Amino acid sequence: MNILVTNDDGIDARGIYELVLALREIGNVIVMAPLGEQSAVGHALTVSLPLRVTEFHKNGAFFGFAVSGTPADCVKLALRTFLAERDLPRPDIVVSGINHGRNTAVNIIYSGTVSAATEATVLDVPAIAVSLTSYHLDADFLPAAEFMRRFTPRVAALGIPRGTLLNVNVPALPTDKIEGVAFTKQGASYWEDEFEKRIDPQERPYYWLKGRYVLEDRDPDIDDIAIRERKISITPIHYDLTNYEFLETLRAKWPKDY
Amino acid sequence: MNILVTNDDGIDARGIYELVLALREIGNVIVMAPLGEQSAVGHALTVSLPLRVTEFHKNGAFFGFAVSGTPADCVKLALRTFLAERDLPRPDIVVSGINHGRNTAVNIIYSGTVSAATEATVLDVPAIAVSLTSYHLDADFLPAAEFMRRFTPRVAALGIPRGTLLNVNVPALPTDKIEGVAFTKQGASYWEDEFEKRIDPQERPYYWLKGRYVLEDRDPDIDDIAIRERKISITPIHYDLTNYEFLETLRAKWPKDY
Repeated sequence: MNILVTNDDGIDARGIYELVLALREIGNVIVMAPLGEQSAVGHALTVSLPLRVTEFHKNGAFFGFAVSGTPADCVKLALRTFLAERDLPRPDIVVSGINHGRNTAVNIIYSGTVSAATEATVLDVPAIAVSLTSYHLDADFLPAAEFMRRFTPRVAALGIPRGTLLNVNVPALPTDKIEGVAFTKQGASYWEDEFEKRIDPQERPYYWLKGRYVLEDRDPDIDDIAIRERKISITPIHYDLTNYEFLETLRAKWPKDY
Repeated sequence: MNILVTNDDGIDARGIYELVLALREIGNVIVMAPLGEQSAVGHALTVSLPLRVTEFHKNGAFFGFAVSGTPADCVKLALRTFLAERDLPRPDIVVSGINHGRNTAVNIIYSGTVSAATEATVLDVPAIAVSLTSYHLDADFLPAAEFMRRFTPRVAALGIPRGTLLNVNVPALPTDKIEGVAFTKQGASYWEDEFEKRIDPQERPYYWLKGRYVLEDRDPDIDDIAIRERKISITPIHYDLTNYEFLETLRAKWPKDY
């Protein structure tokens, strides 16, 4: 199995390192990831600037290709141009992560980790986004990496519909404390956020985003609630954003002569 | 009616100027838009840097607030902190645009224009994203602006469900050539894109994205096809990305003992 790995925390992050070590045991891994941290970039593409690619080494050995762009840039560049140019195989699956922090509920729309996986599905390659639900500096990525080593080939065998990806969130617990997997819906939890106004040394004001995440849901088939119940949450997501129900309402209610 | 206007082409773009002139005829307009061009930024939020706000003037008069961030930053900053701080009214509706170029099909996921409207719906304010389907430098934004002057109060009167926005694309035609509105689904058209490899003056390679948009659909109830038929396309979109159909498949097919 050929696996393309990327992330949004940057090619030097601990999460992608543990993921790559685990996936190398089950396949041929190619890494193409952002040079620096790219969190909360959403599905950004770099169009006004050129992209640079450099070879990135870790512990004295070649680790992967670092790109001066976003997670979506990495996947598009790999699949559209770079892999073919280097005679590297087209991947059977793209895995994005392991993100340092959860990507659930509304966080999905801001997530560079998820956007990289989405870009793969746009280009017809099955994809998984994987996140660890901890922001702690000393978070342990090993249980999530071990899960991905078992999960990735099973997903490849089951198949994912065109345009859909699996968004995986692993609770920050030792493997023996994790109580299995749950297939979930995207929840309605949200950020109660605001901007703190501060004054810089030149006496000019600036604003800095801060927030508190509010668990809105109760139902165990929701992403954040499954995680609270010590389960690995797996949500199938796609990029057809049409609200079909309201489309019918609009067609029925809107004046015909408009 | 209080209207917050933003965009992704930047506060100095022609599209937002025509939109603001038109909407000032029907309500109290506050502009909070990016200082510079922010196309294809997706739903990016600025978290690692502070935001600056400056007052922006046009033709010798105050036009609005320029923000050193993304379209989603502008909306979040306005609704969470800035408007209240300045004793400005909370908007009844957010309008994002007029974008210079279409936001249909897969383009929606890369669009800063749409992401600004999405951010408004995350914060429970109804929203419309509006784009003109032309990339020409001398494109005429007036027909789209005139449409928004009529359409915005009707949307406010009809109401939009929580979490949903209307994504409007106006064909680049004179008003009398536009053949009404169509309520549409997000289409499956796509970019047949690649990266052109070039060599810089220092003999180092770089890659630059280029592409051709391929109309995939036929059905007149799809966004891009409605536009081809000279109609204004209106697609209700939301940010629940769950693929419910495949969720059922996963629950049925996945081994119980996993």
